[in-house]
Amino acid sequence: MNVWGNAIKLSIFGESHGAAVGIVVDGLPAGEVIDEGAVTREMERRAPGRGPLATARRETDALEVLSGLYGGKTTGFPVCGVIRSADARPDVYNAALRPGHADWTALLKYGGHADMRGGGHFSGRLTAPLVFAGSLAKQILARKNIEALARIASIESIEDNEWRNDGMTNDREGFRALSSLDFPASPGVGMVMKKAIEAARDAGDSVGGVVEGAVFGLPGGLGEPFFGSMESAAASLLFSIPAVKGVEFGDGFRLAAMRGSEANDSLYVRNGVIGARTNHNGGILGGITNGLPLVVRAAFKPTPSIAHPQDSVDAVMMKNIILEIKGRHDPCVTPRAVPVVEACLALCVLDMLLTFKGTNSVGGIKQ
Amino acid sequence: MNVWGNAIKLSIFGESHGAAVGIVVDGLPAGEVIDEGAVTREMERRAPGRGPLATARRETDALEVLSGLYGGKTTGFPVCGVIRSADARPDVYNAALRPGHADWTALLKYGGHADMRGGGHFSGRLTAPLVFAGSLAKQILARKNIEALARIASIESIEDNEWRNDGMTNDREGFRALSSLDFPASPGVGMVMKKAIEAARDAGDSVGGVVEGAVFGLPGGLGEPFFGSMESAAASLLFSIPAVKGVEFGDGFRLAAMRGSEANDSLYVRNGVIGARTNHNGGILGGITNGLPLVVRAAFKPTPSIAHPQDSVDAVMMKNIILEIKGRHDPCVTPRAVPVVEACLALCVLDMLLTFKGTNSVGGIKQ
Amino acid sequence: MNVWGNAIKLSIFGESHGAAVGIVVDGLPAGEVIDEGAVTREMERRAPGRGPLATARRETDALEVLSGLYGGKTTGFPVCGVIRSADARPDVYNAALRPGHADWTALLKYGGHADMRGGGHFSGRLTAPLVFAGSLAKQILARKNIEALARIASIESIEDNEWRNDGMTNDREGFRALSSLDFPASPGVGMVMKKAIEAARDAGDSVGGVVEGAVFGLPGGLGEPFFGSMESAAASLLFSIPAVKGVEFGDGFRLAAMRGSEANDSLYVRNGVIGARTNHNGGILGGITNGLPLVVRAAFKPTPSIAHPQDSVDAVMMKNIILEIKGRHDPCVTPRAVPVVEACLALCVLDMLLTFKGTNSVGGIKQ
Amino acid sequence: MNVWGNAIKLSIFGESHGAAVGIVVDGLPAGEVIDEGAVTREMERRAPGRGPLATARRETDALEVLSGLYGGKTTGFPVCGVIRSADARPDVYNAALRPGHADWTALLKYGGHADMRGGGHFSGRLTAPLVFAGSLAKQILARKNIEALARIASIESIEDNEWRNDGMTNDREGFRALSSLDFPASPGVGMVMKKAIEAARDAGDSVGGVVEGAVFGLPGGLGEPFFGSMESAAASLLFSIPAVKGVEFGDGFRLAAMRGSEANDSLYVRNGVIGARTNHNGGILGGITNGLPLVVRAAFKPTPSIAHPQDSVDAVMMKNIILEIKGRHDPCVTPRAVPVVEACLALCVLDMLLTFKGTNSVGGIKQ
Repeated sequence: MNVWGNAIKLSIFGESHGAAVGIVVDGLPAGEVIDEGAVTREMERRAPGRGPLATARRETDALEVLSGLYGGKTTGFPVCGVIRSADARPDVYNAALRPGHADWTALLKYGGHADMRGGGHFSGRLTAPLVFAGSLAKQILARKNIEALARIASIESIEDNEWRNDGMTNDREGFRALSSLDFPASPGVGMVMKKAIEAARDAGDSVGGVVEGAVFGLPGGLGEPFFGSMESAAASLLFSIPAVKGVEFGDGFRLAAMRGSEANDSLYVRNGVIGARTNHNGGILGGITNGLPLVVRAAFKPTPSIAHPQDSVDAVMMKNIILEIKGRHDPCVTPRAVPVVEACLALCVLDMLLTFKGTNSVGGIKQ
Repeated sequence: MNVWGNAIKLSIFGESHGAAVGIVVDGLPAGEVIDEGAVTREMERRAPGRGPLATARRETDALEVLSGLYGGKTTGFPVCGVIRSADARPDVYNAALRPGHADWTALLKYGGHADMRGGGHFSGRLTAPLVFAGSLAKQILARKNIEALARIASIESIEDNEWRNDGMTNDREGFRALSSLDFPASPGVGMVMKKAIEAARDAGDSVGGVVEGAVFGLPGGLGEPFFGSMESAAASLLFSIPAVKGVEFGDGFRLAAMRGSEANDSLYVRNGVIGARTNHNGGILGGITNGLPLVVRAAFKPTPSIAHPQDSVDAVMMKNIILEIKGRHDPCVTPRAVPVVEACLALCVLDMLLTFKGTNSVGGIKQ
Repeated sequence: MNVWGNAIKLSIFGESHGAAVGIVVDGLPAGEVIDEGAVTREMERRAPGRGPLATARRETDALEVLSGLYGGKTTGFPVCGVIRSADARPDVYNAALRPGHADWTALLKYGGHADMRGGGHFSGRLTAPLVFAGSLAKQILARKNIEALARIASIESIEDNEWRNDGMTNDREGFRALSSLDFPASPGVGMVMKKAIEAARDAGDSVGGVVEGAVFGLPGGLGEPFFGSMESAAASLLFSIPAVKGVEFGDGFRLAAMRGSEANDSLYVRNGVIGARTNHNGGILGGITNGLPLVVRAAFKPTPSIAHPQDSVDAVMMKNIILEIKGRHDPCVTPRAVPVVEACLALCVLDMLLTFKGTNSVGGIKQ
Repeated sequence: MNVWGNAIKLSIFGESHGAAVGIVVDGLPAGEVIDEGAVTREMERRAPGRGPLATARRETDALEVLSGLYGGKTTGFPVCGVIRSADARPDVYNAALRPGHADWTALLKYGGHADMRGGGHFSGRLTAPLVFAGSLAKQILARKNIEALARIASIESIEDNEWRNDGMTNDREGFRALSSLDFPASPGVGMVMKKAIEAARDAGDSVGGVVEGAVFGLPGGLGEPFFGSMESAAASLLFSIPAVKGVEFGDGFRLAAMRGSEANDSLYVRNGVIGARTNHNGGILGGITNGLPLVVRAAFKPTPSIAHPQDSVDAVMMKNIILEIKGRHDPCVTPRAVPVVEACLALCVLDMLLTFKGTNSVGGIKQ
């Protein structure tokens, strides 16, 4: 079950303190030029240890591609990328169940056999292979003028309303500029967000946030009416990211509070091409893309690892304890989640493009 | 792609004004007693034409089971249930693209070949087979003391805060009583909600809402760390329901505004069993159930079919028009969506139970 | 698990003496013209009760298409076709386990709950929906000049060596003429085969046979190196046909007795197009088609239902008995299996075409 | 598509002369003790360079497990094993299309972008990760007393009839002794087979052969009536092995020449347990295991790499050439294929066991 995709298949593996984390990406088209520098830049956007707000653990940058690339191009064979755990400490052991983490459920599912050091296979470190896979997808999509971007929409209760993506302005350049910032939020509000993260960290606490993503340049006609809806596919991948607890498309939950006359995107035709005047539906109608930007938001819960004393359970002795998690932890994963959301959107959209290309024998998708 | 599930496989078919809608459910255990009356009652909870708020179209109740049941039990063979379209009007034709509907995207995907009368395969009518399939799952789950329930959490901006499921009270009886109401909301606020729906209808408009679901009695250990997370599975099925634009688990988007010290569910052990003092995570940690009630909310957008004049496009002439949708339409699908959400949750949970039973050779899930 | 395909998804249902048998075919391209007459002719090729050699049971011809076709074309929505069991006898009951049938294994798997009247879901009757699905695929393929044909290669030990398909002659017309015969074998040897079937029938016995299929006009480049090989895909579908116990491609088992110098198909290039001088590999190298005819053979075991007294077990009393199966049964399913093999090949090839179209961004498959 | 399995998922990667070949195996139960020595012994059974008959290329033995094992046990997380290509020669380049190899079809599918050095991802070297994965499955199955064994049934036209597995004698020990030989055939006929291989090699040629496999100790009730039949699943995996061109179960193609009275396995009951007097059906009826040994044969074509001059095509110049393949190649892959067939059978059977455990709520499979 831990495989994702139709035309492309993602197979992820590795544990936080194991030998390596990695991913197999099957189904990429052959002959796609892959710029290693661009891959590295994506990996660095997600990498920890950048700046005072992030976790102190340093990952080795040594991504190694074991297969599927040759002469700077995809071969069409499965691509396997691995990232060695240079910094792994094999002696680490979680004696206690950390609240908010998967320690408890791993115990229930794997009966204590899971290697849960550092969070094991549940670790946020597993998003590194996702970003690697996503960077391949992004480069392939770029040649079709399709771009997946993301930004911080909120941290704790601080929302970034200075910049607003309604999916209609189609302000791809604006979004790209925002997305490529070290702290991808409107600078003014970003400063306030950073202070909120620092305040939480200083209080031995952590904060959550919302990441907003958008895919620009997407053709219409991708997705299926029911089980294969674009929302279903994107949500299934986004909910794979550790800490994501909510996903909404377009105006999402706000649509539930609207009337139809507000929520409907009215249509027009110009030069034979149909368009819409608003994008409340986030570029998806009936599970299928309409060619407007796909807009999605993912809610990230606050990092469960906090310095606060917490009621918990000693996993070995099975007795109640007060747990104090030591060491420095990311007080907020949301900023580093921005490239992860982009990666997931790029992979989802590429899978859809490869899956549905050609399903209509007479017209429809034009690329 | 339009097939869902692992241990069970759902394959849905049919169009609003075609001969029939139906579903094939494969992978159900053999020998499960199925009470036809219970199936019918579930179907009736979703059926249109009940009360003044609902659409006037009457579906025939004549569900026919073509296979897979024998002597009142499941045989282990695929179950196919079909619902004839007694009321279908073959002469109906959508000349215009209805804003908010899939008419536009169906045109993009199928090049005009789709039978979009009454919404075609995108019609809410397709949720009837889902409810049928869900009613089978519910009966199988009931024997394991597992129950999927749902209620109206909000209509437009009216929230039901009289009754609050925090997933901890484990007030299954209270939830069941609410869920089984004709209008499944706390009676006081329900009255206000109904008035809001009526007001929208009288204004030729429609409203959206949020449905909250919960699964009680679920064992821990179901789901996978990454792509097969319980959130991924449930969201992929819930986003298949027409009109759903947001899905969140536990405190969902509210978690993004919390600090870790608030969001973490602190743990304790009692008589060798681990428990949590709160359920902000909605019964899921690291993608895997912890045995607390699974809590989920789905946002439904307002019915796109409204009487208001709307800017739109004539699909045949490809010219701009003012569209006025005639006939009576459901001004709010949320109440009827309650059994649909329950059906999806029951199917998802049953699939997980059958999939993961036995994946741990030494312990873990005990049923 | 009882769902097959990637780009198209087949979901089959029904029991021999249940209300109906049927199939859902999802993923067909929209806008494909479907000639009902051609569908009916395919169904009739497989239908029982034609001539003295076949079973006496008459199926109703009343195929009903519940969804997915509109105005004589595919809509792109799932197609569901059902065939009512007009002749079903609900009172039939198999008290004994019939040797060679699935009665025993159904008991092991379903614990006695399966509806095994007339073979239940294991019945050869389930090949009728397969032929229906295949007839849709055939019509779509015909427009791409791709054709799946089959013939009887042997009955009992009588081989049809008068006509020999080495996949090189590319004698599509010859194969088509053979395939369309009432008894699809070279007339001379066909006469002998028929006599062998009659002799078996007169002796209260049955005979097996081999069906050879070929797909003409197939483009190269379809299939995957490993798990998704064309052989894997075709074999998985062919082994779904009841009574198939062996599948081989090209020279198949005879290749195992050859030397490399005999088995290798030597290559040449002419006008920039690569070709081969022989087709020992049956049009597939490394799991991928090379553009030569795909050649495959499927071994059908003799019909298990024979009039001979057989040692068996009373399923109810669990005691040893002598079983005498009454009624007329098909003494040889091989002739009727010819359109079933064609249907499977057409479905497999269409699935591959839709799956791999576009996986190569720079060249490769040209259609 | 290049992912296999239901409850377990295999994802294979790597090229003959790339950095590494490997496999991800997801879905293994947690807590299974894995004996590294046993893994190594399985790898060595397949490894090249053993004895005068095999290819001279030496693979490094350095299998590295990157994830999923911890403290000598499975963790329940995906297991990734990689084998470095110590002996890879990056300068090797196939200028010509080698007849019988995938060079031609890779060109058609990947448009010349595939890294086809040494056969690329089509190389027999990819069976090493399969054997690794199989060795995990074998150890898990051994604890359930299930064993997958294989032997050489024929080389060229030399059949091993000294030892005959009819699947009824249930001579597991005899089969195991044969299977564990360096040259897994009855010693007398094995000598003759080896001479045939030597003769082919000395003539600059190669030979094919047949491998017979059997699974002992298998419970009844595994598999599905149609698309998920045990034959479909096993064949889809076996046809993934490079060079396999035919697969048959039980008496396979010989069944096609039998009468029903010969082919039917007559039944009896003893102490409440049903049994059969013969095993012509290879332990599978209606796609479902009956508890008798699963018997299967796979036909391997002769190694395409031969020293004989062959007509072929220069892939760069696109002109006709005479190709002489230099270097030493395995004149017969069949002996080394024995552990590969065992690995595939073990993986298939484990997948079925984990998939169908619990699908019958009332009885059936008992483990």
